Amino acid sequence: LIGGSFALALRKAGFQGRLLGVSSPEAMQAALQLGIVDQNASLEQAAEQADLIYLAQPIERILARLEELQRLNPGGLITDAGSTKLRIVEKAAGLSAQFLGGHPMAGKETRGVESASADLFRGFPYILTPRSSEELQTPVAKEFQEWLVAIGARVEILDANEHDRLVAATSHLPQLISTALALALQDEKTRQTAGPAIREMTRLARSPYDVWRDIFGTNDDEIRKAIAGFRKELDRLEAALTREEMASYFEQATRNAERLR
Amino acid sequence: LIGGSFALALRKAGFQGRLLGVSSPEAMQAALQLGIVDQNASLEQAAEQADLIYLAQPIERILARLEELQRLNPGGLITDAGSTKLRIVEKAAGLSAQFLGGHPMAGKETRGVESASADLFRGFPYILTPRSSEELQTPVAKEFQEWLVAIGARVEILDANEHDRLVAATSHLPQLISTALALALQDEKTRQTAGPAIREMTRLARSPYDVWRDIFGTNDDEIRKAIAGFRKELDRLEAALTREEMASYFEQATRNAERLR
Repeated sequence: LIGGSFALALRKAGFQGRLLGVSSPEAMQAALQLGIVDQNASLEQAAEQADLIYLAQPIERILARLEELQRLNPGGLITDAGSTKLRIVEKAAGLSAQFLGGHPMAGKETRGVESASADLFRGFPYILTPRSSEELQTPVAKEFQEWLVAIGARVEILDANEHDRLVAATSHLPQLISTALALALQDEKTRQTAGPAIREMTRLARSPYDVWRDIFGTNDDEIRKAIAGFRKELDRLEAALTREEMASYFEQATRNAERLR
Repeated sequence: LIGGSFALALRKAGFQGRLLGVSSPEAMQAALQLGIVDQNASLEQAAEQADLIYLAQPIERILARLEELQRLNPGGLITDAGSTKLRIVEKAAGLSAQFLGGHPMAGKETRGVESASADLFRGFPYILTPRSSEELQTPVAKEFQEWLVAIGARVEILDANEHDRLVAATSHLPQLISTALALALQDEKTRQTAGPAIREMTRLARSPYDVWRDIFGTNDDEIRKAIAGFRKELDRLEAALTREEMASYFEQATRNAERLR
């Protein structure tokens, strides 16, 4: 989904170069049929030829790829789209080529190159996590940032720690909440009263676990803090359920929600 | 929103009769300008002339209207779109005309006749809460149900108690969760990582409190039970955060979420 969408977005933004795909035979067949990449390649071939290596996989797979790339001595820039950044940035310190960690705040509840879309990143944050601000000033890093702007993303700079703390609240917590809400609706009769609100609030609950395993595994401390913060707010709302202070909670929630748009 | 949408939906479905609007001068001006109703009326005029009286207001206002209608002796059918049903159905027992409680599981986070849409009810449940199944068989009740089908709604029959229990889980709980999530995102930096997931999960948090006050006030017991059920699931997820049993929780959540669609 992410790798394919990045390829489609680059093309739409006018990228003229070649796009090599490194993936499973099934994914590559689909990507070639859909015209998303120009050519199938091995990681070795990509490392030898590419100006930009874009790793869009679950976190543990990215970590394994970074190990391989340490041996392959690629040129150009290596970046990734992993959902947590601290472990990845630490691992990438061993590379000879420049690495710039990334995380597009975009996605769908469906996976795979078949769901790819050239507009997936448009209007959403695309976070970069350099270890120092100088890393953003190299020619390859500047060119990469120009392409991010060209595909409609909003580039945001954070350090890896801060990124992991913030996405625990804005991405991992909402996923767990949606999953918990769906689990709480075990009663089959709930279907009889299912309007747009509950469908929307349980959309994320349909996300496949295999992308989430590594996220929970690499960010569990921050996620537990985010859950604790949310639980406190829910407790406050329950205590105020039939009291007039609910009005001010709703106003504050509206302000916070507006700020996220 | 609901009253105006019902009027627009009726017209789109081929209703040829007259639509009288009973509301504030401001709302009526907008409704007339937008061509949503044919004519401004007082409740007295509507009670005298209408075949169907459709009460689309916050719950306490519906309860007050039912008191007024007890004195006005309307003919035809009276129905409502109140978000909880037990208190309303009990109050309506004092009417001389037939009353049939209703609740369209449809809506938006914006209010007012300006947001009205002819397709608001399409594809969503429209719950009716008769005190006995015979109430659905009168000529006026049958005609009303035919119009509900004509506007694309999915008619569901529940008793008022059951309705209030189920919507606590599918409507009131999601609202409180969305509000609590928005409140937990007090840190302004969260904006830097706000992608589609968090925007979606905090959309409901922008709902105005004035429609929710009466809902919380008339259904707090069921809402507290729904919160407790949700909290239990969130606790289970947190305990399993880095364990393989998460896979089965995600699978169950996906199944439950699919059932709501």
